[in-house]
Amino acid sequence: MQQLSVGMVGLGTVGAGVARILTQHVGRIARRAGRPVELKWAVVRDLKKRRDADFEGVRVVDDVRKVIEDPEVGVVVELIGGVDAARRIVLDALAAGKHVVTANKALLAEHGPEILAAARAADRAVAFEASVAGGIPILGAIDVGLAANQVQSLAAILNGTCNYILTQMTQGGIAYSQALADAQALGFAEADPTLDVDGTDTAHKLAVLAQIAFGADVRTADIPREGIDRLEIADLTYARELGYTIKLLAHARLADGGLELRVAPSLVKNDRPLAQVHGPYNAVRVVGDAVGDTLYYGRGAGMMPTASAVVADLIDVATGRAAITSRVLDFWSPDAPPVPLLPASRTRRRNYLRFLIADRPGVIASIATILGHKGISIASVIQHEPTPADENGEPGPVPLVIMTHLAVEEDLRDAIREIDRLDVVRAPSVRLGVEE
Amino acid sequence: MQQLSVGMVGLGTVGAGVARILTQHVGRIARRAGRPVELKWAVVRDLKKRRDADFEGVRVVDDVRKVIEDPEVGVVVELIGGVDAARRIVLDALAAGKHVVTANKALLAEHGPEILAAARAADRAVAFEASVAGGIPILGAIDVGLAANQVQSLAAILNGTCNYILTQMTQGGIAYSQALADAQALGFAEADPTLDVDGTDTAHKLAVLAQIAFGADVRTADIPREGIDRLEIADLTYARELGYTIKLLAHARLADGGLELRVAPSLVKNDRPLAQVHGPYNAVRVVGDAVGDTLYYGRGAGMMPTASAVVADLIDVATGRAAITSRVLDFWSPDAPPVPLLPASRTRRRNYLRFLIADRPGVIASIATILGHKGISIASVIQHEPTPADENGEPGPVPLVIMTHLAVEEDLRDAIREIDRLDVVRAPSVRLGVEE
Repeated sequence: MQQLSVGMVGLGTVGAGVARILTQHVGRIARRAGRPVELKWAVVRDLKKRRDADFEGVRVVDDVRKVIEDPEVGVVVELIGGVDAARRIVLDALAAGKHVVTANKALLAEHGPEILAAARAADRAVAFEASVAGGIPILGAIDVGLAANQVQSLAAILNGTCNYILTQMTQGGIAYSQALADAQALGFAEADPTLDVDGTDTAHKLAVLAQIAFGADVRTADIPREGIDRLEIADLTYARELGYTIKLLAHARLADGGLELRVAPSLVKNDRPLAQVHGPYNAVRVVGDAVGDTLYYGRGAGMMPTASAVVADLIDVATGRAAITSRVLDFWSPDAPPVPLLPASRTRRRNYLRFLIADRPGVIASIATILGHKGISIASVIQHEPTPADENGEPGPVPLVIMTHLAVEEDLRDAIREIDRLDVVRAPSVRLGVEE
Repeated sequence: MQQLSVGMVGLGTVGAGVARILTQHVGRIARRAGRPVELKWAVVRDLKKRRDADFEGVRVVDDVRKVIEDPEVGVVVELIGGVDAARRIVLDALAAGKHVVTANKALLAEHGPEILAAARAADRAVAFEASVAGGIPILGAIDVGLAANQVQSLAAILNGTCNYILTQMTQGGIAYSQALADAQALGFAEADPTLDVDGTDTAHKLAVLAQIAFGADVRTADIPREGIDRLEIADLTYARELGYTIKLLAHARLADGGLELRVAPSLVKNDRPLAQVHGPYNAVRVVGDAVGDTLYYGRGAGMMPTASAVVADLIDVATGRAAITSRVLDFWSPDAPPVPLLPASRTRRRNYLRFLIADRPGVIASIATILGHKGISIASVIQHEPTPADENGEPGPVPLVIMTHLAVEEDLRDAIREIDRLDVVRAPSVRLGVEE
C-alpha cells in the first residue's frame, strides 16, 4: 500500500516527540500501520529556531497552506493548541480531503459538532486519542474495548499539574501556594497555571469524554467546576483522618433525570485505586453495565506519552480503522438523541463539611438541626480540641467536620447558607463532595 | 449494510452473558457495529437443559456443523474452552469462511500459530480480547492504543481466583487451605482449582500477551511458573512488614539477551498500583518506550465482564476493524523475526529470602558470606525474637528474612542450595522474587 504522508502543524514539545517516534522507528511504525508513515511537512511559527536531528528530511515551513495544498499529504496533525487558529486549520484540512489527528481538547470541547460535521461531509476521520489523558488510550478503551456497554459513570484524574500539587500537599503537608511554586520550578506547572488549577482544562477533557462515553453534546461552560486553588491543608488532613484522599475529579454519571457532570476537588476512599494515583499521573475509572468497574492509568501529558497517542492515531488512520470508527460512531452527530444534563442543583452526593464554630454548648446541635430539617443525615463527625484562647480568655474557634450521607445539592447549599448565618459560626464553611 | 449473523458454540456462563447483551441491547449494539448483530445459532451439549428468556429466537442445537455449514453465519464464537475440540471448531469455521471470536487462552497458547495461519489462508479475522483479563480491554490497549511503542515490560495479575485467595490471606491472616475453601464456597474457585492455583491459567494468558506485546511465539510449557499453593502466611506477614504485598504475577521484560518470562508469586511495593488490586480484580501494567508506565484494571473473569469482551470483538468484526487488525498485525506469523527467551537461570531480580536458623552466634555471618561469594548483596534484614525453647532448653529456631539487591537467578539458586546444607539451617529456605 502507498505510504501515508503526514503534515504536522505545531512543533512544540509534543510535535517534537511525534517527529522523534516517526523518524527513529520507521520500521516499527510501518509494520504496525501496514504501510510507511512519513513525516513530510512540519509547520512552525519561527523558521529560525534551532531544530534537532529528528527533523532531517522533514520540510519545515511557516505556511500551513503548503501542507493543506499538497495532494500527497493524507493526514494533518494539529498540535498548535488554542481554539480559533486550530479550528481553521482542521476545517481547511478536512475540506482538502485530509484526515485529521488532533490533541486539542479545547477545540473539541468548543467546536466538536462543527468539526465532526465537516469530517462527515468530507468522509474523513478525525482522531483525537491524545486530547484526553495523553498516555492513556482511554477513548479507544471506551469506544472500542467497552463497546458492548452502556457506560454508567466515570471518574477521572485528568490534570497532572493539579494531581502533582495535591500529592505534594497531601504527602508533604505543604500549602497550596508553595506546592504550586514547586510544581512551576520543576516544570510540572505553567507560568500561568490558571486553566489547570481552576478546573478548566479538566472540564475540556470531560466534555470530550461525555461525548465518547454518553453521547452527550456538552460545551465546557455547561460543566459546573471548582478548582484546587482554594483548598486548605486542613481539609486534606481531616480527609486523611477519615480515610480519604482529595483529588481533582472529573465526574459523570447517568442519573435519573439526566447526566450528572462536574469538575471538583473530591474525597476518594483510600482503598480505591483512584486514591493511589500520585504525582503527574492520570487515571480514568469507567463503570459499564456489563463490564463493571474498570480503570486506566498512565501519564496524562508530557512529550512522549502524548506523542505516543498521536502516533497511535496516525497508525489507526493508516490502517483504515480510524475511518471506520469515525463513520460508525459518528461523534457529535446532530442525529444522535440528545442526552439531557441534570441541573447541578438536583445532583446528589455525599459531602464533607467543615465549620469553624465557637466552643460553646449547643452549637453542634444547631448545625445538626439545620441539616436535619433539610433531610440531610450525618454519617460521621470529627471535633478536635479547641484552638488556644485569645487574650480575653475567650476560647478559640473549633473546627467541626461532618460527613453527610447522600444529599441533594440544592438542599445542601440551603443548609450551608443557613448555618453560615449562625452567630456561633466563625468563618464560611468548607464543602467538598465525596466520590462513590 | 447486511446484518452479521452469529453462531455461538458453548452456552455456559459466558455464552449466556453474550446472549443477554445481544438480545437485550439490540439497538445499542447495531448502532456501534454499524449493522445489526443477530445471535442466530447456539450450540450446546445438552439440548434438554433449561434455557432462559435470553435465547428467544435463537436456534439452539447440539450439532456444530449446522452453524459451520450455514452460509448466513458470518462469525463463529467459540466458548467451549479446552483445547482439542475447540481447535477443530475454530479451524473448521475459518475454513468455511467465518470470522472467529474466542475467549480460549489455552487454545491460543498451544495452537496460536496454526490457528492464525488458518485465518490468514482464509483471509478471516480471529479476535480474542476475552482470552486475557476478560473485562480489561488489554489486547486492544497494547496493539492499537500503544501501537507507537515498543513494550519494554509488563507485569500482570491475571487470575482472579488466586488474587482473591491472596487478598484473603493478606487482609484476614487466613492460611492458604482455608482461604481456598472460602473461595470455593463463594464460587470464586473451582472444585478442582489446580490450573488456577498452580499458575497454569496465568501462564496461558502470559503466552498470549507475549505474542501481542513482544511478538514472541511461546508455548505455555516454555514459561517457568510457580503457583500460590505453597505460600505461607509468615511470608505474607514479613512482606507486609517490609512494605510489600505478595501477588501472583505474570512477568515479561525485554532484557539483554532475550525476553524474560515467568509466572510466580512476587513481592510488589505497596505504593505501586498493582499492590492495590484486591479480590477478584485483575490488572496489567505495561511499560512502553514512549508512553512510560500504564496500568489497566478490571474484573478478569465472570459472566458479564467476559461477555463484554466477546461482544466488543463481535462489534469489531462487524465494523471491519478486526479484519484490518488481523491482517496488519499478523499475529503468530512465521515471517516475524523470532524473539529469543532468556533462560530462567540467566534472569535477574531482587529477592526475598526466609531462612529458619538456629539461634547461635555466627549464623547470619555464614549466610551472608555465602551470598557474598556469589556476588549477591543484601539490601535489608529482619530478624525477630527466637521461637520458644524446647523441653531440653534448646532455643527454638529463628526466622531470618533477607531482601537482596538484583541477583542472577543461577547464582541465587546456588547460594540457597549451599545455605540449605548448613547444619544451622533448620528448614528449606523460602525464596520469592520482587517485581520492580
